[in-house]
Amino acid sequence: MNEMLNGSLDRITNKICASYRGDARTQHIGHAFLPSGDKIVELLGQIRQLLFPGFFGPKEITEQNVRYHVGALLVRIGGELTEQVYNCLCHEAQKAQDAPCRTQSAQIASDFLESVPELREALALDAQAAYDGDPAAKSIDEVIYCYPGFYAVMVYRIANRLHRLGVPLMPRIMTEHAHGATGTDIHPGAQIGRSFFIDHATGVVIGETTRIGDGVKIYQGVTLGALSFPKDERGRVIKGLQRHPTLEDNVTIYANATILGGQTVIGRGVTVGGNTFVTESITADSTVTSEAPQLQVRSKKKAGH
Amino acid sequence: MNEMLNGSLDRITNKICASYRGDARTQHIGHAFLPSGDKIVELLGQIRQLLFPGFFGPKEITEQNVRYHVGALLVRIGGELTEQVYNCLCHEAQKAQDAPCRTQSAQIASDFLESVPELREALALDAQAAYDGDPAAKSIDEVIYCYPGFYAVMVYRIANRLHRLGVPLMPRIMTEHAHGATGTDIHPGAQIGRSFFIDHATGVVIGETTRIGDGVKIYQGVTLGALSFPKDERGRVIKGLQRHPTLEDNVTIYANATILGGQTVIGRGVTVGGNTFVTESITADSTVTSEAPQLQVRSKKKAGH
Amino acid sequence: MNEMLNGSLDRITNKICASYRGDARTQHIGHAFLPSGDKIVELLGQIRQLLFPGFFGPKEITEQNVRYHVGALLVRIGGELTEQVYNCLCHEAQKAQDAPCRTQSAQIASDFLESVPELREALALDAQAAYDGDPAAKSIDEVIYCYPGFYAVMVYRIANRLHRLGVPLMPRIMTEHAHGATGTDIHPGAQIGRSFFIDHATGVVIGETTRIGDGVKIYQGVTLGALSFPKDERGRVIKGLQRHPTLEDNVTIYANATILGGQTVIGRGVTVGGNTFVTESITADSTVTSEAPQLQVRSKKKAGH
Amino acid sequence: MNEMLNGSLDRITNKICASYRGDARTQHIGHAFLPSGDKIVELLGQIRQLLFPGFFGPKEITEQNVRYHVGALLVRIGGELTEQVYNCLCHEAQKAQDAPCRTQSAQIASDFLESVPELREALALDAQAAYDGDPAAKSIDEVIYCYPGFYAVMVYRIANRLHRLGVPLMPRIMTEHAHGATGTDIHPGAQIGRSFFIDHATGVVIGETTRIGDGVKIYQGVTLGALSFPKDERGRVIKGLQRHPTLEDNVTIYANATILGGQTVIGRGVTVGGNTFVTESITADSTVTSEAPQLQVRSKKKAGH
Amino acid sequence: MNEMLNGSLDRITNKICASYRGDARTQHIGHAFLPSGDKIVELLGQIRQLLFPGFFGPKEITEQNVRYHVGALLVRIGGELTEQVYNCLCHEAQKAQDAPCRTQSAQIASDFLESVPELREALALDAQAAYDGDPAAKSIDEVIYCYPGFYAVMVYRIANRLHRLGVPLMPRIMTEHAHGATGTDIHPGAQIGRSFFIDHATGVVIGETTRIGDGVKIYQGVTLGALSFPKDERGRVIKGLQRHPTLEDNVTIYANATILGGQTVIGRGVTVGGNTFVTESITADSTVTSEAPQLQVRSKKKAGH
Amino acid sequence: MNEMLNGSLDRITNKICASYRGDARTQHIGHAFLPSGDKIVELLGQIRQLLFPGFFGPKEITEQNVRYHVGALLVRIGGELTEQVYNCLCHEAQKAQDAPCRTQSAQIASDFLESVPELREALALDAQAAYDGDPAAKSIDEVIYCYPGFYAVMVYRIANRLHRLGVPLMPRIMTEHAHGATGTDIHPGAQIGRSFFIDHATGVVIGETTRIGDGVKIYQGVTLGALSFPKDERGRVIKGLQRHPTLEDNVTIYANATILGGQTVIGRGVTVGGNTFVTESITADSTVTSEAPQLQVRSKKKAGH
Repeated sequence: MNEMLNGSLDRITNKICASYRGDARTQHIGHAFLPSGDKIVELLGQIRQLLFPGFFGPKEITEQNVRYHVGALLVRIGGELTEQVYNCLCHEAQKAQDAPCRTQSAQIASDFLESVPELREALALDAQAAYDGDPAAKSIDEVIYCYPGFYAVMVYRIANRLHRLGVPLMPRIMTEHAHGATGTDIHPGAQIGRSFFIDHATGVVIGETTRIGDGVKIYQGVTLGALSFPKDERGRVIKGLQRHPTLEDNVTIYANATILGGQTVIGRGVTVGGNTFVTESITADSTVTSEAPQLQVRSKKKAGH
Repeated sequence: MNEMLNGSLDRITNKICASYRGDARTQHIGHAFLPSGDKIVELLGQIRQLLFPGFFGPKEITEQNVRYHVGALLVRIGGELTEQVYNCLCHEAQKAQDAPCRTQSAQIASDFLESVPELREALALDAQAAYDGDPAAKSIDEVIYCYPGFYAVMVYRIANRLHRLGVPLMPRIMTEHAHGATGTDIHPGAQIGRSFFIDHATGVVIGETTRIGDGVKIYQGVTLGALSFPKDERGRVIKGLQRHPTLEDNVTIYANATILGGQTVIGRGVTVGGNTFVTESITADSTVTSEAPQLQVRSKKKAGH
Repeated sequence: MNEMLNGSLDRITNKICASYRGDARTQHIGHAFLPSGDKIVELLGQIRQLLFPGFFGPKEITEQNVRYHVGALLVRIGGELTEQVYNCLCHEAQKAQDAPCRTQSAQIASDFLESVPELREALALDAQAAYDGDPAAKSIDEVIYCYPGFYAVMVYRIANRLHRLGVPLMPRIMTEHAHGATGTDIHPGAQIGRSFFIDHATGVVIGETTRIGDGVKIYQGVTLGALSFPKDERGRVIKGLQRHPTLEDNVTIYANATILGGQTVIGRGVTVGGNTFVTESITADSTVTSEAPQLQVRSKKKAGH
Repeated sequence: MNEMLNGSLDRITNKICASYRGDARTQHIGHAFLPSGDKIVELLGQIRQLLFPGFFGPKEITEQNVRYHVGALLVRIGGELTEQVYNCLCHEAQKAQDAPCRTQSAQIASDFLESVPELREALALDAQAAYDGDPAAKSIDEVIYCYPGFYAVMVYRIANRLHRLGVPLMPRIMTEHAHGATGTDIHPGAQIGRSFFIDHATGVVIGETTRIGDGVKIYQGVTLGALSFPKDERGRVIKGLQRHPTLEDNVTIYANATILGGQTVIGRGVTVGGNTFVTESITADSTVTSEAPQLQVRSKKKAGH
Repeated sequence: MNEMLNGSLDRITNKICASYRGDARTQHIGHAFLPSGDKIVELLGQIRQLLFPGFFGPKEITEQNVRYHVGALLVRIGGELTEQVYNCLCHEAQKAQDAPCRTQSAQIASDFLESVPELREALALDAQAAYDGDPAAKSIDEVIYCYPGFYAVMVYRIANRLHRLGVPLMPRIMTEHAHGATGTDIHPGAQIGRSFFIDHATGVVIGETTRIGDGVKIYQGVTLGALSFPKDERGRVIKGLQRHPTLEDNVTIYANATILGGQTVIGRGVTVGGNTFVTESITADSTVTSEAPQLQVRSKKKAGH
Repeated sequence: MNEMLNGSLDRITNKICASYRGDARTQHIGHAFLPSGDKIVELLGQIRQLLFPGFFGPKEITEQNVRYHVGALLVRIGGELTEQVYNCLCHEAQKAQDAPCRTQSAQIASDFLESVPELREALALDAQAAYDGDPAAKSIDEVIYCYPGFYAVMVYRIANRLHRLGVPLMPRIMTEHAHGATGTDIHPGAQIGRSFFIDHATGVVIGETTRIGDGVKIYQGVTLGALSFPKDERGRVIKGLQRHPTLEDNVTIYANATILGGQTVIGRGVTVGGNTFVTESITADSTVTSEAPQLQVRSKKKAGH
């Protein structure tokens, strides 16, 4: 107990409440209908059980009982996902309760669960790509079980699906969770093709309007970012333009390369070397490196020693 | 149960205990008065509820009940913060119990809570800066609710306040927690002005003696680091010197730039390009890029194929 | 509850189950004997208590009671470690139950616990190296208690020991946990000498076949990676070759440097500058930097304004 | 895992589902809007904090901070109590959603919280009566803190208040919880006066239509029950009649006495002896015992020994 | 921390360990294969969900999803029940591992789950009997949801089924759990017919060899116990004899009656009055009461006052 | 959220706070130093692990590791017990902090732990007595593992030891916990000899000044209570007198017997029959029953039917 605080408790309380009244941007007093971040992260865990039975969740799954496991999971996920989507829709609509949002959220949750087999198909290709692309990978199990790059891609594919179904806020909460867990920031609005692999996933940024083809592989520290934000004649950022690059099929980008700009197209089959800084398009089937800056090697030993 | 181990249990136990006796640096046997890392992270969560009511913590907050919510939170935070500050002061003083530390910790906790409205003001500007600076940001709510860069800055501002109040160890535990959660390592001793924004916060390092003005924006992978550690004539590191750079107002630093050195001043309004390596001062209102290394593009297709 | 989903529950369940039957790579139905990731992370926490008594775990440890604390911890760790090693061995052997794996796992757990004093010795040197190498470090306590780089190295040393004892999967689960917690990805197969320190540990990658001598210090963003994967005449990756660089004793590598290739040897005492891209060997006792690319500074102010 | 069960899983599942369809009394499929027993027991714990601050709940309560503690508790209790009362009203009305029930539940929760000071007054008298009536009681603190008889009376007074406010089901859930915890079954509909004490509270039953005056004290094993259930000419139990006895002021009833019948009035100041079986009224200021049945004492020693 | 204890820690530890060596009855060192009481109580909770869907467990159960709920519950219960039955069988067989016990436990768990519909049928009759027999009962829901007598009977019926399937120890752990929760001690070996109701269930004891017909109703405090334990000529208790009474159909026993003896048969339709002590058989269709002991009522008022 | 409550929140808060100021007996505002009931119940669980290793607590206990298990448990129990004893002593002394209480509590905790072997010896005899005295008991394991009567006696023996060591409040909290769990209320001040057994432990009360010899066995519903409370000439209860009966060695008391009075001595070897009401001494080696009240058996069948 802090007795010093006791004496000034009323005063500090009043001061803080006054600060709430002073700035409506940073409080949600009286209309707090934000979704629950914790529930959304729990949902990701349950969806992962649905995607990879036996890897995650209960171990006693067999041919005979798998239907019940799936059905029961669907009911749990369906209920909670509907609830959280509803919260997100209400939050965007600035309404505490809204009947159309209720219907819409039920529809979205159903549509999402319909798409689970497609997600599984996409993620199987991603896992295979990781295994094929990493000499250190011992098995596909290892990829699914402990590769952070695979986790980040899984969360992205879930979030992207919800983003395309029109859910606000939640997809971003999901990808920022994966960002925190893996250091890999993939915006849910990015478009990423099949068989995608991020090795050593750390420090990777893939921006909102990026377009990535099939069979692409990138390494740690790669940024696919915006070069600048085009503005209209009155100085306002023009929305809806592509600000981030396009990577065609089978592109490989090595560690710490930075590729910027909505006009930048990395052609099919291109290999981009490590630490390269690219702001212009590259034609297909070529290898890009920076002109190696001359390394300067100076001996530390002084003459005569 | 491991029966093999059972047989050698006495021997291994003795061996490990001998290893404790052999190295006092790596054990706290008999004088373990370290603060609790878990409690400190819990405190951060409670302080966040105080800073952004309705965003975090209970949802049923209204104009009528907010005072009680705030007062009760203050009592909880006040008690635990006093306790943990006390642990930190005792740890530094190498004493298990100490009356002056007791008084001092109560004073520090009170002073910290007095400063909550100021923290709110600073963070509102940071949130606005993030919204203004990121075309992908849909609302200020989204920034406060799920931007890791904003989280890292919030934790820094809390830790920096405690650092300035003279609390040892705890501020660093806080910023290292945020480092783990976001990949953004801001030392609590850094000085950062108003309206600060870190986009895609990953792989960012801001060193202990960095000075940052108002309206600064930085991207992922930026290091504001030390160039070298000046030593005195006897080869010992000279303490108290500025080892990290100064950024004046309205500076923007793009992804993966590295700016080093305590003498390096980036002038007001400067824009530093991505992947730039800067170790000297830059005059105000200029744009700095590296001379673009010539990209070398070689076709993978062999002639005749 | 989602009533819309209720109507299509049977259909979606069937569809998802069909998708399981369609791809055996991404499910473990009927043979789910993977180790438990959560248990393995718990084990790391208990091993940390064993390594640094009084820092972590119960606080009331004294000269008189430390033996009991250690013995009881050994029993707990010994049992659970044996269990999880057994799961890993069975998983690799593709068998649900296996007597030789049972014996082997007990032996491995015993051997690991035997090595705790050695681990303590190695980690004491690492902690000292961190304290000596970082002007911002206030004490060795601070290093052990909250430096993420030290945590990543501790997890690596535990995982590497288990890797050398022949445990599959678990070492990687451990280092990927540390990767998630610190943004530092050290493969358990890497060989790292004494007194190793990673400052601002974020975005660091140390590949599987890296060899690091004593007294090495690296900063954030450093990659010790593969240049390319040598293939045999039939295009298959040749296994067992060194793909990652060798760092001899007392090498220092500054932030964001990238060093690639199994033939690349950084000689004793070399200092590699920040943002350097190195793919060839460097002789001992030299300092390597890139030829500084000419910074281009352009004034933003237009003439006449 | 039970492999035998796996083979018959579909069959058993079908059989159990058929059994649900066969008996609607024992399932709530499709209309499950029962209140939560766990939540109601939690509410009791929070109400107890409100009634006896410093005894239960946080310890750091002072004159200065008590208001905030109370206000914050009121908000929590108010919200959850409203919710659970609403569930109970809906359950009784056989409706999943109902606007009048919503309004009514808010009113009831407010009315209940208004009555807290009255409850405190009544319970202070009960605690004093326990202390005065039990030579083994060391202090009033001991009574409030650990006497099960006091706990049962507290729960009864809370439940009785809610019963009088028209809440269905919940009061009974509360008293049955106390029944389980203390072996004391007081129906929420009973009417009990001031300064009531149950010593060694175990095996006590106080029926629905019991009326108890002020200053009454009873011991373990006492039943205040129904003699028989009067029926109308068609053999149906007549509802609304008093089936249980009346105890006027200052009655004392010793252990294991059984008092039955709605016409039975135990007059003011009467003492009823242990193990007495009473089915008729007793005039005031008298002592009632059974004619002591002659004890039969036979020696176990055989003659000649 | 207790420093006084620290000094004598070795001595006390040795003393206690010596005490273990001294008495093997009260320790299970080296062969601890007891079942888990906590797991068994959890199992009861899950079985209750299976018996009364919508009353207990998740609320969102519908006609469409109930199959999945049931199937998934069966898998969970089946696995854990098999495990705990196995522990009980091994414990009885004094073996840590035993293959026949493994098969037997799987069979028992399957057989038990097969009997769930029968259990439901029996419990529906019990619930109806409670509702019919208690004027205070508002609905069958209230009986199932909060009547401790019904809970005790439910646990008994589950435990009795397992007892008849040959499971040692576990049935008793179950009924003793119900004993603790409700004050009602029904031995799992008792035989109880249909439509059984215990009102105000507290202080009730029903012994191991009791036989109870259909439609029986008993009140609080009733003991159905042993009169004495018949011994053979060498003074040893003769096992396997009926030691407890037989109650034929439609018997009613009021509060605190004690009925003892294996030869005592309470005939069909008999009503036994409260506080009666019965050790001999009663013919059918009669009412039994004790000859009411004359109540002695003495005025407390002294003459002349 | 309850909006109705929101409007009257200030008013109700004030009203409740006024009620606190109005009655100091029922609040501990500003001096809340009560022990923690939850911690004390946890302590009981840990002490039980110490008393019966392998029955409760971790299962992997062997001859080799038992010392460590015991030593580590002693440290945990020693620390927490000291803390809670300290709280109890401070509470009694009405002081928030007190140095002599600190020393005393450490001494008491040490003394208690010294007595564990004695407790084990006593409890082994109790367990044997239960097994010998109950034909339904299958093994001593069953008694220790699930007999509530044995649990109540164990808690009593622990509490009695602490009571004799001079600890206030805590012993009562312990026995009231057992009272709640088993319906058996044994005051910690009672004196109970060796080989004590309570069968079907429910509804049992053993008062504060009861004295019980060796080899005593009692059944459910037995009260060993006070007849009346002797008062001095000024009408105040005389403290320190024996108010409850004395039972000499080898007494057996059947169900629901009530024995009252501090002068009542039940002689060695006496058997007291069920439902007997005894308020006078009984000579040794005799059997006591009530003169059986004549059972009145009336046929329910009306003549002519």
